Amino acid sequence: MVDVSVRHAEPHDAEALHRILSGPKAIEGTLQLPLQSVEKRREWLSEMPEGIHHLVACVEGEVVGSLGLRVFPTLWRRRHVAEIGMAVRDDWQGRGVGTALMEAALDLADNWLNLTRVELTVYVDNAAGVALYKKFGFEIEGTHHCFAFRSGEYVDAYSMARTKQLYSAPC
Amino acid sequence: MVDVSVRHAEPHDAEALHRILSGPKAIEGTLQLPLQSVEKRREWLSEMPEGIHHLVACVEGEVVGSLGLRVFPTLWRRRHVAEIGMAVRDDWQGRGVGTALMEAALDLADNWLNLTRVELTVYVDNAAGVALYKKFGFEIEGTHHCFAFRSGEYVDAYSMARTKQLYSAPC
Repeated sequence: MVDVSVRHAEPHDAEALHRILSGPKAIEGTLQLPLQSVEKRREWLSEMPEGIHHLVACVEGEVVGSLGLRVFPTLWRRRHVAEIGMAVRDDWQGRGVGTALMEAALDLADNWLNLTRVELTVYVDNAAGVALYKKFGFEIEGTHHCFAFRSGEYVDAYSMARTKQLYSAPC
Repeated sequence: MVDVSVRHAEPHDAEALHRILSGPKAIEGTLQLPLQSVEKRREWLSEMPEGIHHLVACVEGEVVGSLGLRVFPTLWRRRHVAEIGMAVRDDWQGRGVGTALMEAALDLADNWLNLTRVELTVYVDNAAGVALYKKFGFEIEGTHHCFAFRSGEYVDAYSMARTKQLYSAPC
């Protein structure tokens, strides 16, 4: 596995993020569209909604992976929850980038945000994605029929979640 | 069953909506909190985000039920999908209000928005809700552990969805 460092995304990551999210495999594994605007990516990075912890993975001086951990600051009864969406640049898949991003995101979730439930959605045929999430303790909770449109047809997706015990030491 | 009429919500429905969403049973069945502000309800009704079709049910001159059908206008690969959230005033539950709201929402979804997937989340112990949704063709797709906080504890929820065939007549 290569040496991967993880930090928060910055507006100047727009070009790198665009390249990650424009790869055919990345598009296939997410809800991204081809033919998007770099300027829109920059706006997204500059005006990120409250509650999104957007991490990027750097390898050999390049940003090659992206993970958003989204909490719901005003959805009061789901403040213990975050959802994750992630993508690794096509030419860097299967080399530890997703693992590094997930380790960093779950450290944030477990040890700093005190979240007890992290959830995500993954297409049922994304075997590498499902394996990565299972490695980190995510379990399949359900299958959503015709969840999204992809390459000219509807595709099913799994809901997966990782729940943990509440931290219960006295304060 | 009583005579129920359904129309779109208006800003002047704030007081009635507040009464619906402040009932202990309504709070129990949704993600609402007790002790909320009427003025916030009015702002919500006045500045509704794009993509929310917010219906209300009127009985005997009073608004006693609320249903939001939310589509995802810029989530391009999920444009065939809507999600539903609904509530009926505590003293009007079990009297056909939910049925009238659901009929109206699914007419909008099927015959005007051409949606092929309608999804929702319901607490696993909300038997009346689950029965209503099953009556309209929704099926349970999964069970989410510790989905939300309610009455001092975490509670599980079902994902349910109703999918239908694409309209395929030539145009």
